[in-house]
Amino acid sequence: MTKREGRTLPLARLRAELERRGLDGFFVPRSDEHQGEYVPPSAQRLAWLTGFTGSAGAAVVLRDKAAFFTDGRYTLQAAAEVDAGAFELLHLVERPPHEWIAAALPAGARLGYDPWLHTPDGVGHLKDACDRAGGTLVACAENPLDAVWTDRPAPPLAPIEVHPLALAGKSAADKRADLAALLAKDRLDAAVLTAPDSIAWLLNVRGGDVPFTPLPLSFAILHADARVEWFVDQRKLTATLGEHLGNGVAVEPPAAFGAALDALAGRRVRLDFATAPAWTHDRLATAGARIVRGADPAQLPKACKNDVELEGARSAHRRDGVALARFFAFIARTARAGGLGEIAAADKLEEFRARGEHYRGPSFPTISGAGPNGAIVHYRATRASERRIEPGQLLLIDSGGQYLDGTTDVTRTVAIGAAGVEERRRFTQVLKGHIALATTRFPQGTTGSQLDTLARLALWGEGLDYDHGTGHGVGSYLGVHEGPQRISKPGNAQPLLPGMIVSDEPGYYKAGAYGIRIENLVAVRREPAPAGAEKQLLGFETLTLAPIDLALVERDLLTQAEADWLNAYHARVNAEIGPLLDSDTARWLASATRAI
Amino acid sequence: MTKREGRTLPLARLRAELERRGLDGFFVPRSDEHQGEYVPPSAQRLAWLTGFTGSAGAAVVLRDKAAFFTDGRYTLQAAAEVDAGAFELLHLVERPPHEWIAAALPAGARLGYDPWLHTPDGVGHLKDACDRAGGTLVACAENPLDAVWTDRPAPPLAPIEVHPLALAGKSAADKRADLAALLAKDRLDAAVLTAPDSIAWLLNVRGGDVPFTPLPLSFAILHADARVEWFVDQRKLTATLGEHLGNGVAVEPPAAFGAALDALAGRRVRLDFATAPAWTHDRLATAGARIVRGADPAQLPKACKNDVELEGARSAHRRDGVALARFFAFIARTARAGGLGEIAAADKLEEFRARGEHYRGPSFPTISGAGPNGAIVHYRATRASERRIEPGQLLLIDSGGQYLDGTTDVTRTVAIGAAGVEERRRFTQVLKGHIALATTRFPQGTTGSQLDTLARLALWGEGLDYDHGTGHGVGSYLGVHEGPQRISKPGNAQPLLPGMIVSDEPGYYKAGAYGIRIENLVAVRREPAPAGAEKQLLGFETLTLAPIDLALVERDLLTQAEADWLNAYHARVNAEIGPLLDSDTARWLASATRAI
Repeated sequence: MTKREGRTLPLARLRAELERRGLDGFFVPRSDEHQGEYVPPSAQRLAWLTGFTGSAGAAVVLRDKAAFFTDGRYTLQAAAEVDAGAFELLHLVERPPHEWIAAALPAGARLGYDPWLHTPDGVGHLKDACDRAGGTLVACAENPLDAVWTDRPAPPLAPIEVHPLALAGKSAADKRADLAALLAKDRLDAAVLTAPDSIAWLLNVRGGDVPFTPLPLSFAILHADARVEWFVDQRKLTATLGEHLGNGVAVEPPAAFGAALDALAGRRVRLDFATAPAWTHDRLATAGARIVRGADPAQLPKACKNDVELEGARSAHRRDGVALARFFAFIARTARAGGLGEIAAADKLEEFRARGEHYRGPSFPTISGAGPNGAIVHYRATRASERRIEPGQLLLIDSGGQYLDGTTDVTRTVAIGAAGVEERRRFTQVLKGHIALATTRFPQGTTGSQLDTLARLALWGEGLDYDHGTGHGVGSYLGVHEGPQRISKPGNAQPLLPGMIVSDEPGYYKAGAYGIRIENLVAVRREPAPAGAEKQLLGFETLTLAPIDLALVERDLLTQAEADWLNAYHARVNAEIGPLLDSDTARWLASATRAI
Repeated sequence: MTKREGRTLPLARLRAELERRGLDGFFVPRSDEHQGEYVPPSAQRLAWLTGFTGSAGAAVVLRDKAAFFTDGRYTLQAAAEVDAGAFELLHLVERPPHEWIAAALPAGARLGYDPWLHTPDGVGHLKDACDRAGGTLVACAENPLDAVWTDRPAPPLAPIEVHPLALAGKSAADKRADLAALLAKDRLDAAVLTAPDSIAWLLNVRGGDVPFTPLPLSFAILHADARVEWFVDQRKLTATLGEHLGNGVAVEPPAAFGAALDALAGRRVRLDFATAPAWTHDRLATAGARIVRGADPAQLPKACKNDVELEGARSAHRRDGVALARFFAFIARTARAGGLGEIAAADKLEEFRARGEHYRGPSFPTISGAGPNGAIVHYRATRASERRIEPGQLLLIDSGGQYLDGTTDVTRTVAIGAAGVEERRRFTQVLKGHIALATTRFPQGTTGSQLDTLARLALWGEGLDYDHGTGHGVGSYLGVHEGPQRISKPGNAQPLLPGMIVSDEPGYYKAGAYGIRIENLVAVRREPAPAGAEKQLLGFETLTLAPIDLALVERDLLTQAEADWLNAYHARVNAEIGPLLDSDTARWLASATRAI
């Protein structure tokens, strides 16, 4: 079955269903009801419709045309997966769906959407776009795509586990009390929680409903008296959970969520317009609740790791560092001979990680890209796409682990055999950006967006850049991507706060040739004040412990301060990881971390 | 009359009027109907109520308390001008009015506002704040403050002049046609223009209704067929204007504005929710227009200067540079003797500027601050506040001129006599920030916010910062502050585009001691591509031509590249300005711009 034949059918069936309902179009986002990064097979509507398997995208289907949108990380993947004959392929940022709709939707046309799958903010933007086109946006009580998706998988029912106090560092009762106090301070009666990672953090539970992130899909209402109504399929509950949750948490079936929202009539209820389904907004509004727009109250405290979580992260990174040292020693021993496949390399790394204590699985699909595949930012090797790793190539490996005590995410780019002059130069420019961010000190109140440029300057000077953010938040045995902080070009109003874990991952990608990325996780910490300082300075503690390939470093392009950072970092990697290794790997690591 | 007695009366009268109208509070912004930086005396409601004369502030008056808000530039000024017994003095950014209202407004209370003085976005935020407090926001058809402001001045009626094609570089007819084409592309029937500088730019007219910015206060509607309805007091029109405007522009009295909005019933009308009065929104909505939210269409093309405007800016800056050289030579000759006042210094600079061709007046009130007064960011010397300029002090002079061919804005900080070690160190750190921004090259699509940090890094390293933006847009014989671009901490989505003029003005202020700021205007330009470049690089051309005080530069703190920049800049200042000076001043300039 060719790609085109495979995808024509769903599109045709959706169009027929739209016609039947008197709709001229329909918006198919990638997200499910929880707006999370990973969606279970039962909610992969965009993949069913378009074939696209990446984590960011959307499609708009009109009567006579359709468009598919994804960002720079997935442009090449979309070209490979989505039928360009059926869908116009567009850049999510440069030509966003709203712009396309404003131009393409005929005047008078009715564009449908599923209010479970869009946030109130998202619906607002969609409505603006339809207004501009002179069309109408129509909320669909039943999703027309679901009506024609006949082989739709069942929703997941993974068991829910307790995340113990020894790892969480703060009891669920204390978290509920603290958040409830925040609500009371704003004279709110309740907050609706629809982000599963917020709920997992709040209740100190973990699950397995989606891949890579240990969370149970659920909804919750937090009341100002610290009570929680938790809407979760009871088949997912395990024996010890009742005692763990205690009296303050009432477990209710998901079907009871709507009625519970109705019961908030007349109450002041916080709803996160950027993450909640518009359905909850509409239901609360209809019920007569006083909706107060505001951030999910768990998001910020979850992002600021406590001392127990930070200590867990350090431990997890040491174990991760052992696996990475073994893996890169293995690559150094074997890859130069050629013939090792991208998937075999990823499997090998997973094998090393799996030997570590508390390891529960990868935190996202490993990116293992050799040569030109390294230039595909969120590349995922398949049997069809994978290359053999050969001398003269760069190998880019971006991977991470879920450990009970922490989540890791690390990218290294290594030269197989001798590296070219251009590759060494580009790698060193990326490294300069990585170091600039890792070593910066900044006053309290500074946002990640304010620091993003530091990681790009060395590349900008050459007329180069990379089309992705520089850093994302990372959870504690939770999502490998979490907010509210972010280090990226678009403005983000959230200041970096002590305890936040973020990635530092500049890169450079030459399409058809090679990709480079250097990624460590770092934790925001207070820095000592210089004499005369007027501001509390913050900076970063590097958590990731893995050698940076010296074969790709052009020493002459580094300043002395940059070389000092690299040498100090490598000395630390060797000191912390070396003693945990077998003697052969330790010897390799000592050499790989030598001072330059 | 003491400060307290002077301000109690207006507040009491406003409260009585609110009581009479059944209101529990009222929001008094600093802005008028046009949301511009300068407001005519007839609209200085905040000054009448609070005594505050700065350019950014707001007050909220409740029954039993009141709060006054301003930003970091005006904190000290507000403390001097506003009665802290009547108004709680708060920081506009750290404790914004919305937060204060959400906490202070009693549940059930009615907070009034004047829809002419707030934008639709602003009203949205106010409404959220009232919602959070459990109160109600009430639009007042008649401003209650105006009802009790008995000695209110009459509105201004300054004559309107033609801004000729030789200076504007593009005819008003061409501008109207281009903007109309943009509207048509978005299937819009019209756009409402409420920003006087947008209208002045579009029609190639200038006026004098407010100080410092040569613009006539007016409203306009631009139609998709390039027609403009211009709502302006006909007493302001001069003889040549009719011919200049041509058939495409219909002049109508301001009182006809409402009826013209009514006539847009059923039409698709763009309104800028960030700059238009909410009154226009409400009127259009009531009339049944289809309101499409979008930026004032003149804002972006106005910001991107054409070649004629850029050449005008260069000429104006040469004339400004002559005045600055004469002024700083005068300071060098006379100030060390002591006794020169801040106001006399500012007057002297104005005297030198006034000798320049095309000079029409200052572009904003000169800031002339000696010693501790330099630390007041937007200080304005008065007879009561001014200091004598004495040896051992720093003198900060921030000033600018309105020339027919361009608007200037420049800050220099000079040492009177010997400078202290700390002052030299701080000045050099500010200079490093200035140079970092001036020399950066960045890919097309980069916003000013992405560059802001570059100007702060050297200070951050010392635990220091400055509490104002790094750069603002500057008009062409128009506002010295204009958007949409900005170089500042808060995210700003507008990429920098070739032709935009912005300031580069980092600073450092030690309260009670001294202030430092180094400001040049720069124009965004295309830079040549390095070998292998993948992006079009942009950079800055420095327009301002004035020496940077070498007595304050600590050479050892500069890198060689920074020193090279300073020497090259000084060589250029000397080469361009020196030949235009008398021989004494030229000799001084040659020494002031010597290589280090």
